[in-house]
Amino acid sequence: MKTLAAASIAPMQSRPIRTVAVIMAMRAEARPFLDKIRATERELPETVGPLQIQWYDTRVGGLNVVVSVNGADRRHGVDEIGTQPAALNAYVTMVNRRPDLVISAGTAGGWASHGTQVGDVFVSRDRFVFHDRHIPLPGFDQYGVGSYPSVDASYLARSLRLKEGIVTTGNSLDHSAADGRAIAASGASVKDMEAAAIAWVADLLGVPMLAVKAITDLIDAPADTADQFVANLSHASQRLSDVLVAVLEFCEDRTIGDLAHDRSSGAK
Amino acid sequence: MKTLAAASIAPMQSRPIRTVAVIMAMRAEARPFLDKIRATERELPETVGPLQIQWYDTRVGGLNVVVSVNGADRRHGVDEIGTQPAALNAYVTMVNRRPDLVISAGTAGGWASHGTQVGDVFVSRDRFVFHDRHIPLPGFDQYGVGSYPSVDASYLARSLRLKEGIVTTGNSLDHSAADGRAIAASGASVKDMEAAAIAWVADLLGVPMLAVKAITDLIDAPADTADQFVANLSHASQRLSDVLVAVLEFCEDRTIGDLAHDRSSGAK
Repeated sequence: MKTLAAASIAPMQSRPIRTVAVIMAMRAEARPFLDKIRATERELPETVGPLQIQWYDTRVGGLNVVVSVNGADRRHGVDEIGTQPAALNAYVTMVNRRPDLVISAGTAGGWASHGTQVGDVFVSRDRFVFHDRHIPLPGFDQYGVGSYPSVDASYLARSLRLKEGIVTTGNSLDHSAADGRAIAASGASVKDMEAAAIAWVADLLGVPMLAVKAITDLIDAPADTADQFVANLSHASQRLSDVLVAVLEFCEDRTIGDLAHDRSSGAK
Repeated sequence: MKTLAAASIAPMQSRPIRTVAVIMAMRAEARPFLDKIRATERELPETVGPLQIQWYDTRVGGLNVVVSVNGADRRHGVDEIGTQPAALNAYVTMVNRRPDLVISAGTAGGWASHGTQVGDVFVSRDRFVFHDRHIPLPGFDQYGVGSYPSVDASYLARSLRLKEGIVTTGNSLDHSAADGRAIAASGASVKDMEAAAIAWVADLLGVPMLAVKAITDLIDAPADTADQFVANLSHASQRLSDVLVAVLEFCEDRTIGDLAHDRSSGAK
Protein backbone atom coordinates (compact mmCIF):
# COMPACT_ATOMS: atom_id res chain seq x y z
CA MET A 1 0.00 0.00 0.00
CA LYS A 2 2.96 2.34 0.58
CA THR A 3 3.58 2.62 -3.17
CA LEU A 4 -0.08 3.20 -3.96
CA ALA A 5 -0.34 5.94 -1.37
CA ALA A 6 2.93 7.59 -2.34
CA ALA A 7 2.04 7.60 -6.04
CA SER A 8 -1.22 9.46 -5.62
CA ILE A 9 0.20 12.04 -3.27
CA ALA A 10 3.21 12.91 -5.41
CA PRO A 11 1.55 15.71 -7.46
CA MET A 12 0.36 17.38 -4.27
CA GLN A 13 3.82 17.72 -2.73
CA SER A 14 4.50 21.24 -3.98
CA ARG A 15 1.11 22.62 -2.96
CA PRO A 16 1.55 25.61 -0.60
CA ILE A 17 -0.59 25.34 2.53
CA ARG A 18 -2.78 28.44 2.74
CA THR A 19 -6.11 27.06 3.99
CA VAL A 20 -6.44 24.17 6.45
CA ALA A 21 -9.72 22.46 7.36
CA VAL A 22 -9.79 20.72 10.74
CA ILE A 23 -12.60 18.15 10.96
CA MET A 24 -13.73 17.24 14.48
CA ALA A 25 -16.52 14.97 15.72
CA MET A 26 -17.26 16.01 19.31
CA ARG A 27 -18.03 19.46 20.67
CA ALA A 28 -16.12 18.64 23.88
CA GLU A 29 -13.03 17.70 21.84
CA ALA A 30 -13.26 20.94 19.84
CA ARG A 31 -14.07 23.45 22.61
CA PRO A 32 -10.57 24.08 24.09
CA PHE A 33 -9.13 24.40 20.58
CA LEU A 34 -11.88 26.78 19.38
CA ASP A 35 -11.37 28.94 22.47
CA LYS A 36 -7.60 28.98 22.06
CA ILE A 37 -7.66 30.05 18.39
CA ARG A 38 -10.55 32.50 19.00
CA ALA A 39 -12.55 31.05 16.12
CA THR A 40 -15.92 32.55 15.24
CA GLU A 41 -18.88 30.53 13.99
CA ARG A 42 -19.79 31.04 10.34
CA GLU A 43 -23.15 30.06 8.84
CA LEU A 44 -23.25 27.29 6.28
CA PRO A 45 -24.48 28.36 2.83
CA GLU A 46 -28.13 27.48 2.16
CA THR A 47 -27.11 25.28 -0.77
CA VAL A 48 -25.69 22.61 1.57
CA GLY A 49 -29.11 21.95 3.13
CA PRO A 50 -30.15 21.75 6.80
CA LEU A 51 -27.07 19.94 8.15
CA GLN A 52 -25.89 19.86 11.78
CA ILE A 53 -22.31 20.74 10.84
CA GLN A 54 -20.81 23.83 12.53
CA TRP A 55 -18.06 25.88 10.87
CA TYR A 56 -15.66 28.08 12.86
CA ASP A 57 -13.26 30.40 11.04
CA THR A 58 -10.05 32.01 12.18
CA ARG A 59 -6.49 32.78 11.14
CA VAL A 60 -3.40 31.28 12.73
CA GLY A 61 -0.50 33.47 11.62
CA GLY A 62 -0.95 33.77 7.86
CA LEU A 63 -2.99 30.58 7.61
CA ASN A 64 -6.75 30.45 6.98
CA VAL A 65 -8.28 27.89 9.30
CA VAL A 66 -11.78 26.43 9.21
CA VAL A 67 -12.75 24.09 12.01
CA SER A 68 -15.76 21.96 11.08
CA VAL A 69 -17.53 20.10 13.89
CA ASN A 70 -20.03 17.33 13.06
CA GLY A 71 -22.64 18.76 15.43
CA ALA A 72 -25.36 17.10 17.50
CA ASP A 73 -27.65 14.39 16.17
CA ARG A 74 -31.14 15.88 15.86
CA ARG A 75 -32.88 12.76 17.21
CA HIS A 76 -30.48 11.71 19.95
CA GLY A 77 -28.85 15.03 21.01
CA VAL A 78 -25.35 13.54 21.26
CA ASP A 79 -22.42 14.38 18.96
CA GLU A 80 -22.56 12.73 15.55
CA ILE A 81 -19.52 10.50 15.97
CA GLY A 82 -18.60 7.71 13.57
CA THR A 83 -17.90 7.35 9.89
CA GLN A 84 -21.03 8.61 8.07
CA PRO A 85 -21.14 12.06 9.72
CA ALA A 86 -17.35 12.31 9.31
CA ALA A 87 -17.58 11.54 5.59
CA LEU A 88 -20.44 13.99 5.06
CA ASN A 89 -18.72 16.76 7.05
CA ALA A 90 -15.46 16.17 5.15
CA TYR A 91 -17.26 16.26 1.80
CA VAL A 92 -19.28 19.42 2.48
CA THR A 93 -16.29 21.23 3.99
CA MET A 94 -13.85 20.26 1.23
CA VAL A 95 -16.20 21.05 -1.66
CA ASN A 96 -17.24 24.41 -0.21
CA ARG A 97 -14.06 25.63 1.52
CA ARG A 98 -11.39 24.20 -0.80
CA PRO A 99 -8.67 23.57 1.81
CA ASP A 100 -5.09 22.75 0.78
CA LEU A 101 -4.85 20.34 3.71
CA VAL A 102 -7.46 18.49 5.77
CA ILE A 103 -6.74 17.39 9.35
CA SER A 104 -8.91 14.83 11.12
CA ALA A 105 -8.46 15.87 14.75
CA GLY A 106 -9.81 14.29 17.90
CA THR A 107 -9.34 11.74 20.62
CA ALA A 108 -8.56 8.07 20.09
CA GLY A 109 -7.57 4.81 21.70
CA GLY A 110 -4.05 3.38 21.82
CA TRP A 111 -2.21 0.33 23.11
CA ALA A 112 0.04 0.18 26.21
CA SER A 113 1.88 -2.68 24.47
CA HIS A 114 3.03 -0.14 21.84
CA GLY A 115 4.44 2.09 24.57
CA THR A 116 1.51 4.49 24.30
CA GLN A 117 0.31 6.53 27.29
CA VAL A 118 -2.90 8.48 27.88
CA GLY A 119 -2.36 12.05 26.63
CA ASP A 120 0.12 11.06 23.90
CA VAL A 121 -0.60 12.78 20.58
CA PHE A 122 -0.12 10.90 17.32
CA VAL A 123 0.26 12.14 13.76
CA SER A 124 -1.00 9.71 11.10
CA ARG A 125 1.52 7.71 9.12
CA ASP A 126 1.27 6.06 5.70
CA ARG A 127 -2.42 5.11 5.39
CA PHE A 128 -5.84 5.00 7.01
CA VAL A 129 -7.57 1.66 7.44
CA PHE A 130 -10.96 0.38 8.61
CA HIS A 131 -11.08 -2.53 11.08
CA ASP A 132 -14.84 -3.21 11.10
CA ARG A 133 -15.68 -3.67 7.41
CA HIS A 134 -15.38 -7.45 6.93
CA ILE A 135 -16.36 -8.37 3.36
CA PRO A 136 -14.92 -11.80 2.43
CA LEU A 137 -15.37 -11.47 -1.36
CA PRO A 138 -12.48 -11.02 -3.82
CA GLY A 139 -11.51 -7.33 -4.10
CA PHE A 140 -14.11 -6.30 -1.54
CA ASP A 141 -11.88 -7.66 1.25
CA GLN A 142 -9.22 -5.03 0.47
CA TYR A 143 -11.87 -2.37 -0.20
CA GLY A 144 -13.15 -3.12 3.31
CA VAL A 145 -9.73 -2.31 4.76
CA GLY A 146 -9.61 0.88 2.71
CA SER A 147 -5.95 1.96 2.96
CA TYR A 148 -6.53 5.55 1.89
CA PRO A 149 -3.33 7.61 2.05
CA SER A 150 -2.01 9.89 4.76
CA VAL A 151 0.24 12.82 3.99
CA ASP A 152 3.81 12.05 5.09
CA ALA A 153 4.16 14.40 8.06
CA SER A 154 7.24 12.78 9.55
CA TYR A 155 9.24 16.03 9.74
CA LEU A 156 6.32 17.78 11.43
CA ALA A 157 6.06 14.88 13.92
CA ARG A 158 9.81 14.94 14.70
CA SER A 159 9.86 18.72 15.04
CA LEU A 160 6.91 18.79 17.45
CA ARG A 161 7.98 15.58 19.26
CA LEU A 162 4.75 13.78 18.37
CA LYS A 163 4.41 10.04 17.83
CA GLU A 164 3.55 8.64 14.41
CA GLY A 165 1.21 5.72 13.76
CA ILE A 166 -1.22 4.11 11.37
CA VAL A 167 -4.78 5.09 12.29
CA THR A 168 -7.54 2.45 12.14
CA THR A 169 -11.22 3.43 12.15
CA GLY A 170 -14.44 1.71 13.20
CA ASN A 171 -17.95 2.67 14.30
CA SER A 172 -17.74 1.16 17.80
CA LEU A 173 -15.99 2.30 20.98
CA ASP A 174 -15.10 -1.34 21.66
CA HIS A 175 -14.08 -3.92 19.07
CA SER A 176 -14.96 -7.50 18.14
CA ALA A 177 -12.54 -10.43 17.82
CA ALA A 178 -12.59 -10.03 14.02
CA ASP A 179 -11.91 -6.30 14.41
CA GLY A 180 -8.95 -7.19 16.65
CA ARG A 181 -7.50 -9.48 13.98
CA ALA A 182 -7.89 -6.71 11.37
CA ILE A 183 -6.15 -4.22 13.67
CA ALA A 184 -3.25 -6.64 14.28
CA ALA A 185 -2.90 -7.28 10.53
CA SER A 186 -2.80 -3.54 9.71
CA GLY A 187 -0.13 -2.66 12.26
CA ALA A 188 -2.22 0.28 13.46
CA SER A 189 -1.36 1.96 16.74
CA VAL A 190 -4.21 4.48 16.93
CA LYS A 191 -7.93 3.53 16.95
CA ASP A 192 -10.55 6.15 16.20
CA MET A 193 -14.09 6.40 14.76
CA GLU A 194 -13.69 8.88 11.88
CA ALA A 195 -10.28 9.22 10.21
CA ALA A 196 -10.51 6.53 7.47
CA ALA A 197 -13.91 7.85 6.35
CA ILE A 198 -12.46 11.36 6.00
CA ALA A 199 -9.43 9.91 4.18
CA TRP A 200 -11.74 8.17 1.69
CA VAL A 201 -13.43 11.48 0.85
CA ALA A 202 -10.11 13.36 0.74
CA ASP A 203 -8.76 10.75 -1.68
CA LEU A 204 -11.87 11.09 -3.90
CA LEU A 205 -11.52 14.87 -4.02
CA GLY A 206 -7.72 14.91 -4.27
CA VAL A 207 -7.11 16.82 -1.03
CA PRO A 208 -4.03 15.97 1.10
CA MET A 209 -5.07 14.70 4.52
CA LEU A 210 -3.51 13.76 7.85
CA ALA A 211 -4.80 13.04 11.34
CA VAL A 212 -3.81 14.39 14.77
CA LYS A 213 -5.16 12.19 17.57
CA ALA A 214 -4.81 12.50 21.36
CA ILE A 215 -5.04 9.24 23.31
CA THR A 216 -7.88 8.99 25.88
CA ASP A 217 -7.81 5.25 26.56
CA LEU A 218 -5.54 2.22 26.42
CA ILE A 219 -7.39 -0.62 24.77
CA ASP A 220 -5.19 -3.30 26.35
CA ALA A 221 -5.38 -1.81 29.88
CA PRO A 222 -7.50 -3.57 32.52
CA ALA A 223 -9.83 -0.55 32.92
CA ASP A 224 -13.01 -0.31 30.83
CA THR A 225 -12.55 1.67 27.58
CA ALA A 226 -15.71 3.76 28.09
CA ASP A 227 -14.68 4.64 31.69
CA GLN A 228 -11.17 5.65 30.57
CA PHE A 229 -12.61 7.72 27.71
CA VAL A 230 -14.91 9.69 30.01
CA ALA A 231 -12.19 10.19 32.65
CA ASN A 232 -9.56 11.39 30.16
CA LEU A 233 -11.59 13.28 27.52
CA SER A 234 -11.06 16.73 29.05
CA HIS A 235 -7.30 16.34 29.61
CA ALA A 236 -6.73 14.79 26.16
CA SER A 237 -8.79 17.52 24.45
CA GLN A 238 -6.70 20.20 26.18
CA ARG A 239 -3.49 18.51 25.04
CA LEU A 240 -4.96 18.12 21.54
CA SER A 241 -5.74 21.84 21.46
CA ASP A 242 -2.13 22.79 22.27
CA VAL A 243 -0.73 20.41 19.68
CA LEU A 244 -3.17 21.51 16.96
CA VAL A 245 -2.09 25.13 17.36
CA ALA A 246 1.56 24.05 17.05
CA VAL A 247 0.71 21.96 13.95
CA LEU A 248 -1.05 24.92 12.30
CA GLU A 249 1.86 27.26 13.14
CA PHE A 250 4.21 24.67 11.62
CA CYS A 251 2.17 24.58 8.37
CA GLU A 252 2.53 28.31 7.76
CA ASP A 253 4.79 29.11 4.78
CA ARG A 254 5.25 25.41 4.07
CA THR A 255 4.11 23.10 1.27
CA ILE A 256 2.62 19.62 1.75
CA GLY A 257 6.05 18.17 0.91
CA ASP A 258 7.67 20.31 3.61
CA LEU A 259 5.75 18.34 6.26
CA ALA A 260 7.90 15.31 5.38
CA HIS A 261 11.32 16.86 4.93
CA ASP A 262 13.43 19.60 6.42
CA ARG A 263 13.71 22.09 3.56
CA SER A 264 16.66 23.88 5.16
CA SER A 265 18.74 20.69 5.35
CA GLY A 266 18.75 20.29 1.56
CA ALA A 267 17.34 16.77 1.95
CA LYS A 268 14.61 15.74 -0.51
CA MET B 1 -39.36 4.71 18.43
CA LYS B 2 -42.66 4.33 16.62
CA THR B 3 -43.88 7.63 18.04
CA LEU B 4 -40.67 9.46 17.22
CA ALA B 5 -40.72 8.22 13.62
CA ALA B 6 -44.42 8.87 13.11
CA ALA B 7 -44.19 12.40 14.51
CA SER B 8 -41.47 13.53 12.15
CA ILE B 9 -43.08 12.01 9.08
CA ALA B 10 -46.54 13.47 9.67
CA PRO B 11 -46.02 16.76 7.74
CA MET B 12 -44.78 14.80 4.72
CA GLN B 13 -47.91 12.67 4.35
CA SER B 14 -49.66 14.91 1.84
CA ARG B 15 -46.61 15.36 -0.40
CA PRO B 16 -47.41 14.23 -3.97
CA ILE B 17 -44.78 11.87 -5.36
CA ARG B 18 -43.45 13.38 -8.59
CA THR B 19 -39.72 12.60 -8.45
CA VAL B 20 -38.25 9.44 -6.94
CA ALA B 21 -34.53 8.84 -6.33
CA VAL B 22 -33.46 5.20 -6.18
CA ILE B 23 -30.08 4.78 -4.44
CA MET B 24 -28.18 1.57 -5.28
CA ALA B 25 -24.73 0.35 -4.22
CA MET B 26 -23.68 -2.30 -6.76
CA ARG B 27 -23.62 -2.05 -10.54
CA ALA B 28 -24.69 -5.72 -10.83
CA GLU B 29 -27.72 -5.02 -8.62
CA ALA B 30 -28.69 -2.01 -10.73
CA ARG B 31 -28.09 -3.35 -14.26
CA PRO B 32 -31.35 -5.35 -14.86
CA PHE B 33 -33.37 -2.44 -13.43
CA LEU B 34 -31.58 0.20 -15.53
CA ASP B 35 -32.10 -1.90 -18.67
CA LYS B 36 -35.76 -2.49 -17.89
CA ILE B 37 -36.60 1.19 -17.34
CA ARG B 38 -34.37 2.29 -20.26
CA ALA B 39 -32.57 4.85 -18.12
CA THR B 40 -29.89 7.05 -19.67
CA GLU B 41 -26.78 8.20 -17.84
CA ARG B 42 -26.63 11.87 -16.93
CA GLU B 43 -23.46 13.70 -16.00
CA LEU B 44 -23.05 15.02 -12.48
CA PRO B 45 -22.74 18.80 -12.22
CA GLU B 46 -19.17 20.02 -11.77
CA THR B 47 -20.06 21.58 -8.41
CA VAL B 48 -20.32 18.15 -6.75
CA GLY B 49 -16.64 17.39 -7.38
CA PRO B 50 -14.98 14.29 -8.88
CA LEU B 51 -17.23 11.64 -7.31
CA GLN B 52 -17.72 8.06 -8.55
CA ILE B 53 -21.52 8.30 -8.35
CA GLN B 54 -23.45 7.55 -11.57
CA TRP B 55 -26.87 9.07 -12.26
CA TYR B 56 -29.39 7.49 -14.65
CA ASP B 57 -32.57 9.34 -15.58
CA THR B 58 -35.86 8.10 -16.95
CA ARG B 59 -39.62 8.40 -16.57
CA VAL B 60 -41.91 5.63 -15.38
CA GLY B 61 -45.41 6.67 -16.41
CA GLY B 62 -45.72 10.26 -15.18
CA LEU B 63 -42.98 9.85 -12.58
CA ASN B 64 -39.48 11.34 -12.82
CA VAL B 65 -36.97 8.72 -11.75
CA VAL B 66 -33.28 9.16 -11.01
CA VAL B 67 -31.27 6.05 -10.22
CA SER B 68 -28.02 6.87 -8.44
CA VAL B 69 -25.40 4.12 -8.24
CA ASN B 70 -22.44 4.49 -5.82
CA GLY B 71 -19.91 3.56 -8.51
CA ALA B 72 -16.55 1.80 -8.34
CA ASP B 73 -13.91 2.58 -5.77
CA ARG B 74 -11.04 4.31 -7.55
CA ARG B 75 -8.33 2.41 -5.62
CA HIS B 76 -9.90 -1.04 -5.40
CA GLY B 77 -12.10 -1.21 -8.52
CA VAL B 78 -15.02 -2.86 -6.73
CA ASP B 79 -18.41 -1.26 -6.03
CA GLU B 80 -18.44 1.22 -3.17
CA ILE B 81 -20.69 -0.74 -0.83
CA GLY B 82 -21.26 0.15 2.81
CA THR B 83 -22.45 3.13 4.76
CA GLN B 84 -20.10 6.02 3.86
CA PRO B 85 -20.60 5.83 0.08
CA ALA B 86 -24.34 5.32 0.65
CA ALA B 87 -24.55 8.43 2.84
CA LEU B 88 -22.53 10.53 0.39
CA ASN B 89 -24.56 9.33 -2.62
CA ALA B 90 -27.82 9.98 -0.78
CA TYR B 91 -26.69 13.47 0.23
CA VAL B 92 -25.45 14.54 -3.21
CA THR B 93 -28.52 13.08 -4.95
CA MET B 94 -31.06 14.56 -2.54
CA VAL B 95 -29.51 18.04 -2.45
CA ASN B 96 -29.14 18.24 -6.23
CA ARG B 97 -32.19 16.34 -7.50
CA ARG B 98 -34.77 17.21 -4.81
CA PRO B 99 -36.74 13.94 -4.86
CA ASP B 100 -40.12 13.64 -3.10
CA LEU B 101 -39.23 10.08 -2.10
CA VAL B 102 -35.93 8.23 -1.74
CA ILE B 103 -35.75 4.45 -2.11
CA SER B 104 -32.71 2.48 -0.91
CA ALA B 105 -32.81 -0.51 -3.27
CA GLY B 106 -30.59 -3.57 -3.38
CA THR B 107 -29.92 -7.05 -2.15
CA ALA B 108 -29.82 -8.12 1.48
CA GLY B 109 -29.66 -11.02 3.89
CA GLY B 110 -32.62 -12.54 5.71
CA TRP B 111 -33.36 -15.27 8.24
CA ALA B 112 -34.93 -18.66 7.47
CA SER B 113 -36.25 -18.62 11.05
CA HIS B 114 -38.45 -15.63 10.06
CA GLY B 115 -39.90 -17.66 7.16
CA THR B 116 -37.78 -15.77 4.64
CA GLN B 117 -36.65 -17.39 1.37
CA VAL B 118 -34.00 -16.38 -1.15
CA GLY B 119 -35.65 -14.11 -3.74
CA ASP B 120 -38.20 -12.65 -1.31
CA VAL B 121 -38.51 -8.87 -1.59
CA PHE B 122 -39.05 -6.76 1.51
CA VAL B 123 -40.32 -3.22 1.94
CA SER B 124 -38.95 -1.41 4.99
CA ARG B 125 -41.15 -1.02 8.04
CA ASP B 126 -41.09 1.52 10.89
CA ARG B 127 -37.37 2.38 11.23
CA PHE B 128 -33.81 1.77 10.09
CA VAL B 129 -31.23 0.62 12.61
CA PHE B 130 -27.49 -0.04 12.70
CA HIS B 131 -26.20 -3.27 14.27
CA ASP B 132 -22.45 -2.57 14.23
CA ARG B 133 -22.15 0.77 16.03
CA HIS B 134 -21.54 -0.25 19.66
CA ILE B 135 -20.98 2.86 21.80
CA PRO B 136 -21.62 2.07 25.49
CA LEU B 137 -21.92 5.69 26.69
CA PRO B 138 -25.20 7.33 27.81
CA GLY B 139 -27.10 8.66 24.76
CA PHE B 140 -24.48 7.42 22.36
CA ASP B 141 -25.78 3.85 22.76
CA GLN B 142 -29.11 4.83 21.20
CA TYR B 143 -27.39 7.07 18.65
CA GLY B 144 -25.39 4.01 17.63
CA VAL B 145 -28.61 2.11 16.91
CA GLY B 146 -29.89 5.10 14.92
CA SER B 147 -33.61 4.31 14.48
CA TYR B 148 -34.17 6.75 11.61
CA PRO B 149 -37.72 6.53 10.23
CA SER B 150 -39.08 4.58 7.28
CA VAL B 151 -42.11 5.79 5.37
CA ASP B 152 -45.14 3.62 6.20
CA ALA B 153 -45.58 1.71 2.93
CA SER B 154 -47.85 -1.01 4.29
CA TYR B 155 -50.56 -0.50 1.67
CA LEU B 156 -47.93 -0.62 -1.11
CA ALA B 157 -46.53 -3.84 0.42
CA ARG B 158 -49.98 -5.47 0.69
CA SER B 159 -50.93 -4.41 -2.84
CA LEU B 160 -47.74 -5.80 -4.41
CA ARG B 161 -47.62 -8.86 -2.08
CA LEU B 162 -44.25 -7.88 -0.65
CA LYS B 163 -43.05 -8.68 2.84
CA GLU B 164 -42.44 -5.92 5.37
CA GLY B 165 -39.58 -5.81 7.83
CA ILE B 166 -37.26 -3.63 9.88
CA VAL B 167 -33.96 -3.19 8.02
CA THR B 168 -30.68 -3.31 9.97
CA THR B 169 -27.43 -2.02 8.48
CA GLY B 170 -23.76 -2.76 9.03
CA ASN B 171 -20.46 -2.50 7.14
CA SER B 172 -19.69 -6.24 7.07
CA LEU B 173 -21.12 -9.11 5.05
CA ASP B 174 -20.92 -11.28 8.17
CA HIS B 175 -21.66 -10.18 11.73
CA SER B 176 -20.05 -10.43 15.16
CA ALA B 177 -21.65 -11.82 18.32
CA ALA B 178 -22.35 -8.24 19.51
CA ASP B 179 -23.90 -7.41 16.13
CA GLY B 180 -26.11 -10.51 16.48
CA ARG B 181 -27.34 -9.32 19.88
CA ALA B 182 -28.13 -5.87 18.42
CA ILE B 183 -30.06 -7.48 15.55
CA ALA B 184 -32.08 -9.64 17.95
CA ALA B 185 -32.88 -6.61 20.12
CA SER B 186 -34.08 -4.55 17.14
CA GLY B 187 -36.42 -7.19 15.73
CA ALA B 188 -34.98 -6.65 12.26
CA SER B 189 -35.67 -9.20 9.54
CA VAL B 190 -33.56 -7.72 6.74
CA LYS B 191 -29.78 -7.12 6.96
CA ASP B 192 -28.07 -4.82 4.47
CA MET B 193 -25.03 -2.53 4.25
CA GLU B 194 -26.52 0.85 3.28
CA ALA B 195 -30.13 1.60 4.25
CA ALA B 196 -29.69 3.12 7.74
CA ALA B 197 -26.97 5.46 6.45
CA ILE B 198 -29.31 6.70 3.71
CA ALA B 199 -32.13 7.02 6.25
CA TRP B 200 -29.89 9.21 8.45
CA VAL B 201 -29.28 11.61 5.55
CA ALA B 202 -32.94 11.53 4.47
CA ASP B 203 -33.96 12.39 8.03
CA LEU B 204 -31.45 15.30 8.13
CA LEU B 205 -32.78 16.70 4.86
CA GLY B 206 -36.46 15.97 5.56
CA VAL B 207 -36.98 13.62 2.62
CA PRO B 208 -39.35 10.61 3.02
CA MET B 209 -37.45 7.35 2.58
CA LEU B 210 -38.14 3.63 2.31
CA ALA B 211 -36.13 0.57 1.28
CA VAL B 212 -36.85 -2.26 -1.18
CA LYS B 213 -34.53 -5.23 -0.57
CA ALA B 214 -34.30 -8.59 -2.37
CA ILE B 215 -32.92 -11.47 -0.29
CA THR B 216 -29.73 -13.14 -1.61
CA ASP B 217 -28.73 -15.12 1.47
CA LEU B 218 -30.13 -16.68 4.62
CA ILE B 219 -27.91 -15.76 7.54
CA ASP B 220 -29.04 -18.73 9.65
CA ALA B 221 -28.65 -21.28 6.83
CA PRO B 222 -25.75 -23.76 6.97
CA ALA B 223 -24.25 -22.44 3.69
CA ASP B 224 -21.64 -19.66 3.81
CA THR B 225 -23.13 -16.14 3.45
CA ALA B 226 -20.56 -15.04 0.83
CA ASP B 227 -21.17 -18.20 -1.27
CA GLN B 228 -24.95 -17.72 -1.11
CA PHE B 229 -24.60 -14.05 -2.03
CA VAL B 230 -22.51 -14.80 -5.14
CA ALA B 231 -24.81 -17.68 -6.20
CA ASN B 232 -28.02 -15.67 -5.82
CA LEU B 233 -27.02 -12.11 -6.75
CA SER B 234 -28.15 -12.34 -10.38
CA HIS B 235 -31.54 -13.95 -9.63
CA ALA B 236 -32.25 -11.57 -6.74
CA SER B 237 -31.28 -8.53 -8.82
CA GLN B 238 -33.67 -9.63 -11.59
CA ARG B 239 -36.48 -10.04 -9.06
CA LEU B 240 -35.56 -6.66 -7.50
CA SER B 241 -35.81 -5.03 -10.93
CA ASP B 242 -39.35 -6.34 -11.52
CA VAL B 243 -40.50 -5.24 -8.07
CA LEU B 244 -38.91 -1.78 -8.34
CA VAL B 245 -40.80 -1.08 -11.56
CA ALA B 246 -44.05 -2.14 -9.85
CA VAL B 247 -43.22 0.08 -6.85
CA LEU B 248 -42.59 3.10 -9.10
CA GLU B 249 -45.82 2.47 -11.05
CA PHE B 250 -47.64 2.27 -7.70
CA CYS B 251 -46.23 5.66 -6.64
CA GLU B 252 -47.64 7.50 -9.67
CA ASP B 253 -50.49 9.88 -8.76
CA ARG B 254 -50.09 9.04 -5.07
CA THR B 255 -48.89 10.99 -2.06
CA ILE B 256 -46.51 9.68 0.61
CA GLY B 257 -49.54 9.02 2.83
CA ASP B 258 -51.17 6.96 0.08
CA LEU B 259 -48.39 4.37 0.44
CA ALA B 260 -49.80 3.50 3.87
CA HIS B 261 -53.55 3.58 3.25
CA ASP B 262 -56.02 2.71 0.53
CA ARG B 263 -57.38 6.11 -0.44
CA SER B 264 -60.42 4.60 -2.18
CA SER B 265 -61.51 2.71 0.97
CA GLY B 266 -62.01 5.92 2.93
CA ALA B 267 -59.71 4.60 5.66
CA LYS B 268 -57.29 7.07 7.17
